[in-house]
Amino acid sequence: MKRETFALLENYMLSCMEDSAHDKEHIYRVLYNALDIAGTKEGVDYDVLIGSCLLHDIGRREQFENPALCHAVVGSEKAFRFLKEHGFDGAYAQRVRDCIRTHRYRSDAPPESLEAKILFDADKLDVTGAIGIARTLVYKGGVREPLYSLNPDGTVSTGEGDGAPSFFQEYKRKLEKIYSGFYTECARKTAEKRQKAAAEFYEDMYREAAGAYLTGKEELDRLLT
Amino acid sequence: MKRETFALLENYMLSCMEDSAHDKEHIYRVLYNALDIAGTKEGVDYDVLIGSCLLHDIGRREQFENPALCHAVVGSEKAFRFLKEHGFDGAYAQRVRDCIRTHRYRSDAPPESLEAKILFDADKLDVTGAIGIARTLVYKGGVREPLYSLNPDGTVSTGEGDGAPSFFQEYKRKLEKIYSGFYTECARKTAEKRQKAAAEFYEDMYREAAGAYLTGKEELDRLLT
Repeated sequence: MKRETFALLENYMLSCMEDSAHDKEHIYRVLYNALDIAGTKEGVDYDVLIGSCLLHDIGRREQFENPALCHAVVGSEKAFRFLKEHGFDGAYAQRVRDCIRTHRYRSDAPPESLEAKILFDADKLDVTGAIGIARTLVYKGGVREPLYSLNPDGTVSTGEGDGAPSFFQEYKRKLEKIYSGFYTECARKTAEKRQKAAAEFYEDMYREAAGAYLTGKEELDRLLT
Repeated sequence: MKRETFALLENYMLSCMEDSAHDKEHIYRVLYNALDIAGTKEGVDYDVLIGSCLLHDIGRREQFENPALCHAVVGSEKAFRFLKEHGFDGAYAQRVRDCIRTHRYRSDAPPESLEAKILFDADKLDVTGAIGIARTLVYKGGVREPLYSLNPDGTVSTGEGDGAPSFFQEYKRKLEKIYSGFYTECARKTAEKRQKAAAEFYEDMYREAAGAYLTGKEELDRLLT
Protein backbone atom coordinates (compact mmCIF):
# COMPACT_ATOMS: atom_id res chain seq x y z
CA MET A 1 0.00 0.00 0.00
CA LYS A 2 1.20 3.49 -0.79
CA ARG A 3 1.95 5.74 2.16
CA GLU A 4 -0.51 8.34 0.87
CA THR A 5 -3.28 5.71 0.69
CA PHE A 6 -2.50 4.65 4.25
CA ALA A 7 -2.64 8.30 5.37
CA LEU A 8 -5.99 8.82 3.61
CA LEU A 9 -7.58 5.80 5.32
CA GLU A 10 -5.91 6.60 8.65
CA ASN A 11 -7.23 10.16 8.60
CA TYR A 12 -10.73 8.99 7.76
CA MET A 13 -10.52 6.48 10.63
CA LEU A 14 -9.35 9.21 13.03
CA SER A 15 -12.14 11.55 11.93
CA CYS A 16 -14.68 8.82 12.77
CA MET A 17 -13.42 8.44 16.35
CA GLU A 18 -12.00 11.82 17.23
CA ASP A 19 -13.57 11.79 20.67
CA SER A 20 -11.92 8.64 21.95
CA ALA A 21 -8.24 8.07 22.58
CA HIS A 22 -8.98 4.44 23.49
CA ASP A 23 -10.52 3.51 20.18
CA LYS A 24 -7.56 4.91 18.29
CA GLU A 25 -5.01 2.79 20.21
CA HIS A 26 -7.19 -0.24 19.63
CA ILE A 27 -7.08 0.28 15.85
CA TYR A 28 -3.29 0.29 15.79
CA ARG A 29 -3.04 -2.78 18.03
CA VAL A 30 -5.45 -4.65 15.74
CA LEU A 31 -3.45 -3.59 12.69
CA TYR A 32 -0.19 -4.75 14.28
CA ASN A 33 -1.76 -7.99 15.51
CA ALA A 34 -3.05 -8.57 11.98
CA LEU A 35 0.38 -8.04 10.42
CA ASP A 36 1.83 -10.45 12.95
CA ILE A 37 -0.72 -13.12 12.00
CA ALA A 38 -0.37 -12.36 8.27
CA GLY A 39 3.35 -13.09 8.53
CA THR A 40 2.48 -16.74 9.19
CA LYS A 41 0.22 -17.05 6.13
CA GLU A 42 0.74 -17.28 2.39
CA GLY A 43 -1.13 -15.17 -0.16
CA VAL A 44 -2.37 -12.37 2.07
CA ASP A 45 -3.63 -9.30 0.19
CA TYR A 46 -2.07 -6.63 2.37
CA ASP A 47 -3.97 -3.77 0.76
CA VAL A 48 -7.25 -5.40 1.74
CA LEU A 49 -5.95 -6.36 5.18
CA ILE A 50 -4.50 -2.95 6.10
CA GLY A 51 -7.54 -1.08 4.76
CA SER A 52 -9.91 -3.38 6.68
CA CYS A 53 -7.96 -3.04 9.91
CA LEU A 54 -7.83 0.75 9.73
CA LEU A 55 -11.55 1.08 9.01
CA HIS A 56 -13.01 -1.84 10.95
CA ASP A 57 -14.49 0.22 13.80
CA ILE A 58 -15.62 3.37 11.98
CA GLY A 59 -19.24 2.44 12.72
CA ARG A 60 -18.72 2.49 16.50
CA ARG A 61 -20.12 5.96 17.05
CA GLU A 62 -23.36 5.09 15.25
CA GLN A 63 -23.79 1.95 17.38
CA PHE A 64 -23.03 3.90 20.57
CA GLU A 65 -25.67 6.48 19.68
CA ASN A 66 -28.17 3.81 18.61
CA PRO A 67 -27.49 0.40 20.16
CA ALA A 68 -29.93 -1.20 17.72
CA LEU A 69 -27.32 -0.66 15.00
CA CYS A 70 -24.41 -3.09 14.50
CA HIS A 71 -21.12 -1.25 14.11
CA ALA A 72 -19.77 -3.97 11.82
CA VAL A 73 -22.63 -3.51 9.35
CA VAL A 74 -22.64 0.31 9.59
CA GLY A 75 -18.84 0.45 9.38
CA SER A 76 -18.66 -1.86 6.37
CA GLU A 77 -21.09 0.33 4.42
CA LYS A 78 -19.30 3.55 5.47
CA ALA A 79 -15.98 2.08 4.37
CA PHE A 80 -17.43 0.92 1.03
CA ARG A 81 -18.89 4.38 0.31
CA PHE A 82 -15.68 6.14 1.35
CA LEU A 83 -13.51 3.92 -0.85
CA LYS A 84 -15.80 4.28 -3.87
CA GLU A 85 -15.96 8.04 -3.43
CA HIS A 86 -12.17 8.19 -3.30
CA GLY A 87 -11.64 6.30 -6.52
CA PHE A 88 -10.70 2.84 -5.23
CA ASP A 89 -11.89 0.07 -7.49
CA GLY A 90 -15.15 -1.68 -6.78
CA ALA A 91 -13.68 -5.13 -6.12
CA TYR A 92 -11.28 -3.71 -3.51
CA ALA A 93 -14.04 -1.70 -1.82
CA GLN A 94 -16.19 -4.83 -1.73
CA ARG A 95 -13.47 -7.03 -0.20
CA VAL A 96 -12.81 -4.46 2.53
CA ARG A 97 -16.55 -4.20 3.13
CA ASP A 98 -16.82 -7.97 3.56
CA CYS A 99 -13.91 -8.08 6.03
CA ILE A 100 -15.43 -5.34 8.18
CA ARG A 101 -18.94 -6.79 8.03
CA THR A 102 -17.76 -10.12 9.48
CA HIS A 103 -15.19 -8.96 12.06
CA ARG A 104 -17.53 -9.09 15.02
CA TYR A 105 -17.08 -12.30 16.91
CA ARG A 106 -20.56 -12.39 18.37
CA SER A 107 -22.28 -12.44 15.06
CA ASP A 108 -24.06 -14.77 12.65
CA ALA A 109 -21.84 -13.68 9.74
CA PRO A 110 -18.55 -15.61 9.88
CA PRO A 111 -15.46 -14.27 8.09
CA GLU A 112 -14.83 -15.94 4.72
CA SER A 113 -11.70 -14.56 3.07
CA LEU A 114 -8.22 -15.01 4.54
CA GLU A 115 -8.02 -11.28 5.25
CA ALA A 116 -11.42 -11.34 6.96
CA LYS A 117 -10.28 -14.21 9.19
CA ILE A 118 -7.07 -12.39 10.07
CA LEU A 119 -8.97 -9.19 10.97
CA PHE A 120 -11.42 -11.24 13.02
CA ASP A 121 -8.60 -12.89 14.99
CA ALA A 122 -6.59 -9.68 15.36
CA ASP A 123 -9.59 -7.83 16.77
CA LYS A 124 -10.49 -10.69 19.08
CA LEU A 125 -6.91 -10.83 20.39
CA ASP A 126 -7.42 -7.33 21.76
CA VAL A 127 -10.08 -8.75 24.11
CA THR A 128 -7.64 -11.30 25.56
CA GLY A 129 -5.13 -10.95 28.39
CA ALA A 130 -4.42 -7.82 30.41
CA ILE A 131 -5.30 -5.57 27.46
CA GLY A 132 -8.77 -7.13 27.28
CA ILE A 133 -9.25 -6.57 31.01
CA ALA A 134 -8.06 -2.94 30.74
CA ARG A 135 -10.30 -2.15 27.77
CA THR A 136 -13.33 -3.63 29.52
CA LEU A 137 -12.68 -1.63 32.71
CA VAL A 138 -12.21 1.57 30.72
CA TYR A 139 -15.49 0.89 28.91
CA LYS A 140 -17.31 0.21 32.20
CA GLY A 141 -15.97 3.52 33.52
CA GLY A 142 -17.27 5.33 30.46
CA VAL A 143 -20.79 3.94 30.82
CA ARG A 144 -20.63 4.17 34.64
CA GLU A 145 -21.32 0.52 35.39
CA PRO A 146 -20.08 -0.98 38.66
CA LEU A 147 -17.17 -3.38 39.19
CA TYR A 148 -19.42 -6.08 40.64
CA SER A 149 -22.87 -6.75 42.00
CA LEU A 150 -23.80 -8.02 45.45
CA ASN A 151 -25.64 -11.25 46.12
CA PRO A 152 -28.88 -11.04 48.12
CA ASP A 153 -26.89 -11.98 51.26
CA GLY A 154 -24.55 -9.03 50.75
CA THR A 155 -21.51 -10.99 49.54
CA VAL A 156 -19.78 -10.08 46.27
CA SER A 157 -21.14 -11.96 43.23
CA THR A 158 -18.61 -13.75 41.05
CA GLY A 159 -20.44 -12.31 38.04
CA GLU A 160 -21.57 -15.76 36.87
CA GLY A 161 -25.16 -15.56 35.66
CA ASP A 162 -25.61 -12.00 36.92
CA GLY A 163 -28.53 -10.08 35.45
CA ALA A 164 -27.14 -6.64 36.22
CA PRO A 165 -24.20 -5.34 34.15
CA SER A 166 -20.83 -5.07 35.88
CA PHE A 167 -17.17 -5.78 35.19
CA PHE A 168 -17.38 -9.21 36.82
CA GLN A 169 -20.51 -10.03 34.78
CA GLU A 170 -18.68 -9.08 31.58
CA TYR A 171 -15.66 -11.13 32.60
CA LYS A 172 -17.76 -14.26 33.11
CA ARG A 173 -20.03 -13.65 30.12
CA LYS A 174 -17.37 -12.70 27.58
CA LEU A 175 -13.72 -12.29 28.62
CA GLU A 176 -13.36 -15.71 30.19
CA LYS A 177 -14.76 -17.43 27.10
CA ILE A 178 -12.74 -15.61 24.46
CA TYR A 179 -9.89 -18.10 24.18
CA SER A 180 -11.40 -20.52 21.70
CA GLY A 181 -12.74 -20.09 18.18
CA PHE A 182 -9.77 -18.39 16.54
CA TYR A 183 -9.30 -18.99 12.83
CA THR A 184 -5.49 -18.84 12.82
CA GLU A 185 -2.99 -20.87 14.80
CA CYS A 186 -0.85 -17.76 15.39
CA ALA A 187 -3.69 -15.88 17.12
CA ARG A 188 -4.71 -18.95 19.09
CA LYS A 189 -1.19 -19.28 20.48
CA THR A 190 -0.91 -15.58 21.35
CA ALA A 191 -4.28 -15.74 23.11
CA GLU A 192 -3.22 -18.83 25.03
CA LYS A 193 -0.11 -17.03 26.30
CA ARG A 194 -2.24 -14.13 27.53
CA GLN A 195 -4.98 -16.17 29.17
CA LYS A 196 -3.23 -16.53 32.52
CA ALA A 197 -2.85 -12.74 32.94
CA ALA A 198 -6.58 -12.17 32.59
CA ALA A 199 -7.62 -15.12 34.77
CA GLU A 200 -5.22 -14.17 37.55
CA PHE A 201 -6.36 -10.57 37.53
CA TYR A 202 -10.00 -11.60 37.89
CA GLU A 203 -9.18 -14.04 40.67
CA ASP A 204 -7.02 -11.52 42.55
CA MET A 205 -9.65 -8.83 42.26
CA TYR A 206 -12.45 -11.16 43.32
CA ARG A 207 -10.42 -12.29 46.33
CA GLU A 208 -9.63 -8.71 47.37
CA ALA A 209 -13.19 -7.44 46.98
CA ALA A 210 -15.06 -10.48 48.25
CA GLY A 211 -12.67 -10.85 51.20
CA ALA A 212 -13.40 -7.36 52.49
CA TYR A 213 -17.18 -7.89 52.39
CA LEU A 214 -17.00 -11.35 53.90
CA THR A 215 -15.33 -10.32 57.15
CA GLY A 216 -16.47 -6.69 57.14
CA LYS A 217 -20.20 -7.18 56.94
CA GLU A 218 -20.17 -9.65 59.80
CA GLU A 219 -18.06 -7.37 61.97
CA LEU A 220 -20.30 -4.39 61.18
CA ASP A 221 -23.37 -6.39 62.11
CA ARG A 222 -21.78 -7.22 65.45
CA LEU A 223 -21.00 -3.55 66.12
CA LEU A 224 -24.43 -2.12 65.27
CA THR A 225 -27.04 -2.14 68.04
CA MET B 1 -23.36 2.63 66.74
CA LYS B 2 -27.12 2.36 66.52
CA ARG B 3 -28.52 0.93 63.30
CA GLU B 4 -30.64 4.06 62.78
CA THR B 5 -27.54 6.26 63.08
CA PHE B 6 -25.73 4.08 60.55
CA ALA B 7 -28.70 4.36 58.18
CA LEU B 8 -28.80 8.16 58.60
CA LEU B 9 -25.11 8.53 57.71
CA GLU B 10 -25.30 5.91 54.95
CA ASN B 11 -28.24 7.67 53.31
CA TYR B 12 -26.46 11.02 53.46
CA MET B 13 -23.39 9.40 51.90
CA LEU B 14 -25.51 7.85 49.13
CA SER B 15 -27.23 11.18 48.44
CA CYS B 16 -23.80 12.79 47.95
CA MET B 17 -22.75 10.27 45.28
CA GLU B 18 -25.99 9.15 43.70
CA ASP B 19 -24.53 9.32 40.20
CA SER B 20 -21.71 6.85 40.72
CA ALA B 21 -21.98 3.18 41.45
CA HIS B 22 -18.18 2.97 41.76
CA ASP B 23 -17.87 5.48 44.55
CA LYS B 24 -20.48 3.63 46.57
CA GLU B 25 -18.66 0.29 46.40
CA HIS B 26 -15.46 2.04 47.39
CA ILE B 27 -17.08 3.39 50.56
CA TYR B 28 -18.12 -0.06 51.72
CA ARG B 29 -14.71 -1.56 50.94
CA VAL B 30 -13.03 1.21 52.94
CA LEU B 31 -15.43 0.65 55.83
CA TYR B 32 -14.77 -3.09 55.82
CA ASN B 33 -11.03 -2.60 55.45
CA ALA B 34 -11.17 -0.22 58.41
CA LEU B 35 -13.05 -2.71 60.60
CA ASP B 36 -10.47 -5.34 59.68
CA ILE B 37 -7.63 -3.05 60.74
CA ALA B 38 -9.49 -1.89 63.86
CA GLY B 39 -9.75 -5.51 64.99
CA THR B 40 -5.97 -5.51 65.48
CA LYS B 41 -5.99 -2.35 67.64
CA GLU B 42 -7.01 -1.49 71.21
CA GLY B 43 -9.19 1.47 72.14
CA VAL B 44 -10.79 2.22 68.77
CA ASP B 45 -13.83 4.53 68.93
CA TYR B 46 -16.04 2.68 66.47
CA ASP B 47 -18.63 5.45 66.31
CA VAL B 48 -15.97 7.86 65.07
CA LEU B 49 -14.44 5.27 62.75
CA ILE B 50 -17.68 4.11 61.12
CA GLY B 51 -18.96 7.68 60.73
CA SER B 52 -15.67 8.80 59.20
CA CYS B 53 -15.55 5.87 56.77
CA LEU B 54 -19.11 6.39 55.58
CA LEU B 55 -18.63 10.12 55.03
CA HIS B 56 -15.00 10.32 53.95
CA ASP B 57 -15.65 10.94 50.24
CA ILE B 58 -18.78 13.12 50.37
CA GLY B 59 -16.73 16.03 48.99
CA ARG B 60 -15.80 14.18 45.78
CA ARG B 61 -18.44 15.79 43.61
CA GLU B 62 -17.32 19.30 44.58
CA GLN B 63 -13.70 18.45 43.73
CA PHE B 64 -14.75 16.88 40.43
CA GLU B 65 -16.68 20.03 39.50
CA ASN B 66 -13.88 22.31 40.68
CA PRO B 67 -10.46 20.60 40.79
CA ALA B 68 -9.05 23.49 42.82
CA LEU B 69 -11.05 22.16 45.79
CA CYS B 70 -9.76 19.31 47.95
CA HIS B 71 -12.44 16.68 48.58
CA ALA B 72 -10.97 15.89 52.00
CA VAL B 73 -11.37 19.49 53.18
CA VAL B 74 -14.79 19.99 51.56
CA GLY B 75 -16.00 16.60 52.80
CA SER B 76 -14.82 17.19 56.35
CA GLU B 77 -16.76 20.45 56.57
CA LYS B 78 -19.87 18.92 54.98
CA ALA B 79 -19.72 16.05 57.45
CA PHE B 80 -19.26 18.42 60.41
CA ARG B 81 -22.25 20.54 59.36
CA PHE B 82 -24.43 17.48 58.72
CA LEU B 83 -23.61 15.94 62.10
CA LYS B 84 -24.21 19.21 63.99
CA GLU B 85 -27.51 19.77 62.16
CA HIS B 86 -28.61 16.26 63.09
CA GLY B 87 -27.96 16.67 66.81
CA PHE B 88 -24.65 14.80 67.19
CA ASP B 89 -22.49 16.31 69.89
CA GLY B 90 -19.79 18.79 68.93
CA ALA B 91 -16.83 16.68 70.06
CA TYR B 92 -18.02 13.74 67.93
CA ALA B 93 -18.60 15.94 64.87
CA GLN B 94 -15.15 17.42 65.33
CA ARG B 95 -13.41 14.05 65.57
CA VAL B 96 -15.13 12.81 62.40
CA ARG B 97 -14.20 16.07 60.69
CA ASP B 98 -10.53 15.59 61.62
CA CYS B 99 -10.47 12.01 60.32
CA ILE B 100 -11.96 13.03 56.98
CA ARG B 101 -9.73 16.09 56.62
CA THR B 102 -6.57 13.97 56.92
CA HIS B 103 -7.56 10.84 54.97
CA ARG B 104 -5.93 11.88 51.71
CA TYR B 105 -2.54 10.32 51.33
CA ARG B 106 -1.09 12.96 49.08
CA SER B 107 -1.58 15.77 51.53
CA ASP B 108 0.31 17.90 54.00
CA ALA B 109 -2.12 17.10 56.80
CA PRO B 110 -1.20 13.74 58.34
CA PRO B 111 -3.77 11.76 60.33
CA GLU B 112 -3.40 12.14 64.10
CA SER B 113 -5.99 10.09 65.97
CA LEU B 114 -6.06 6.29 65.86
CA GLU B 115 -9.35 6.41 63.92
CA ALA B 116 -7.87 8.89 61.43
CA LYS B 117 -4.89 6.59 60.84
CA ILE B 118 -7.16 3.60 60.32
CA LEU B 119 -9.33 5.51 57.81
CA PHE B 120 -6.19 6.69 56.02
CA ASP B 121 -4.85 3.15 55.71
CA ALA B 122 -8.22 1.63 54.80
CA ASP B 123 -8.70 4.15 52.01
CA LYS B 124 -5.16 3.71 50.73
CA LEU B 125 -5.60 -0.08 50.68
CA ASP B 126 -8.27 0.40 48.04
CA VAL B 127 -5.57 1.78 45.71
CA THR B 128 -3.47 -1.39 46.09
CA GLY B 129 -3.63 -4.67 44.19
CA ALA B 130 -6.07 -5.60 41.47
CA ILE B 131 -8.76 -3.38 42.98
CA GLY B 132 -6.47 -0.35 42.69
CA ILE B 133 -5.76 -1.20 39.05
CA ALA B 134 -9.47 -1.66 38.31
CA ARG B 135 -10.48 1.61 39.98
CA THR B 136 -7.81 3.53 38.10
CA LEU B 137 -8.87 2.06 34.74
CA VAL B 138 -12.52 2.82 35.45
CA TYR B 139 -11.55 6.39 36.34
CA LYS B 140 -9.48 6.76 33.16
CA GLY B 141 -12.48 5.55 31.15
CA GLY B 142 -14.70 8.13 32.82
CA VAL B 143 -12.38 11.03 31.98
CA ARG B 144 -11.51 9.52 28.57
CA GLU B 145 -7.77 9.33 29.05
CA PRO B 146 -5.75 6.75 27.07
CA LEU B 147 -4.17 3.54 28.34
CA TYR B 148 -0.66 4.66 27.39
CA SER B 149 1.28 7.23 25.44
CA LEU B 150 3.70 6.61 22.60
CA ASN B 151 7.36 7.59 22.64
CA PRO B 152 8.61 9.86 19.84
CA ASP B 153 9.86 6.74 18.01
CA GLY B 154 6.37 5.20 18.07
CA THR B 155 7.02 2.58 20.74
CA VAL B 156 4.75 2.31 23.82
CA SER B 157 5.94 4.40 26.77
CA THR B 158 6.28 2.60 30.10
CA GLY B 159 4.57 5.64 31.68
CA GLU B 160 7.68 6.56 33.66
CA GLY B 161 8.12 10.33 33.60
CA ASP B 162 5.33 10.83 31.03
CA GLY B 163 3.92 14.33 30.78
CA ALA B 164 0.60 13.28 29.23
CA PRO B 165 -1.95 11.54 31.46
CA SER B 166 -2.61 7.86 30.81
CA PHE B 167 -3.13 4.65 32.76
CA PHE B 168 0.56 3.72 32.52
CA GLN B 169 1.54 7.21 33.71
CA GLU B 170 -0.76 6.87 36.72
CA TYR B 171 0.61 3.41 37.45
CA LYS B 172 4.20 4.68 37.53
CA ARG B 173 3.35 7.96 39.29
CA LYS B 174 1.04 6.59 41.95
CA LEU B 175 -0.02 2.92 41.95
CA GLU B 176 3.48 1.49 41.94
CA LYS B 177 4.53 3.66 44.89
CA ILE B 178 1.54 3.05 47.14
CA TYR B 179 2.98 0.17 49.15
CA SER B 180 4.88 2.10 51.79
CA GLY B 181 3.81 4.69 54.35
CA PHE B 182 0.97 2.81 56.03
CA TYR B 183 0.30 3.65 59.68
CA THR B 184 -0.85 0.19 60.72
CA GLU B 185 0.91 -3.14 60.47
CA CYS B 186 -2.32 -4.85 59.42
CA ALA B 187 -2.79 -2.60 56.37
CA ARG B 188 0.88 -2.84 55.46
CA LYS B 189 0.65 -6.63 55.40
CA THR B 190 -2.55 -6.65 53.34
CA ALA B 191 -0.99 -4.22 50.86
CA GLU B 192 2.11 -6.36 50.61
CA LYS B 193 0.02 -9.42 49.75
CA ARG B 194 -1.72 -7.47 46.97
CA GLN B 195 1.37 -5.88 45.47
CA LYS B 196 2.22 -8.77 43.15
CA ALA B 197 -1.22 -8.71 41.51
CA ALA B 198 -0.85 -5.06 40.50
CA ALA B 199 2.76 -5.35 39.37
CA GLU B 200 2.07 -8.44 37.27
CA PHE B 201 -0.94 -6.85 35.63
CA TYR B 202 1.07 -3.80 34.64
CA GLU B 203 3.92 -5.94 33.30
CA ASP B 204 1.58 -8.24 31.36
CA MET B 205 -0.26 -5.32 29.85
CA TYR B 206 2.92 -3.48 28.95
CA ARG B 207 4.31 -6.62 27.31
CA GLU B 208 1.12 -7.20 25.30
CA ALA B 209 0.79 -3.58 24.13
CA ALA B 210 4.45 -2.80 23.58
CA GLY B 211 5.03 -6.12 21.82
CA ALA B 212 2.40 -5.43 19.18
CA TYR B 213 3.86 -1.99 18.34
CA LEU B 214 7.42 -3.23 18.32
CA THR B 215 6.98 -5.82 15.59
CA GLY B 216 3.95 -4.22 13.92
CA LYS B 217 5.35 -0.79 13.18
CA GLU B 218 8.43 -2.24 11.56
CA GLU B 219 6.41 -4.63 9.43
CA LEU B 220 4.03 -1.85 8.39
CA ASP B 221 6.95 0.34 7.39
CA ARG B 222 8.26 -2.46 5.23
CA LEU B 223 4.89 -2.86 3.51
CA LEU B 224 4.23 0.80 2.72
CA THR B 225 5.75 2.17 -0.47
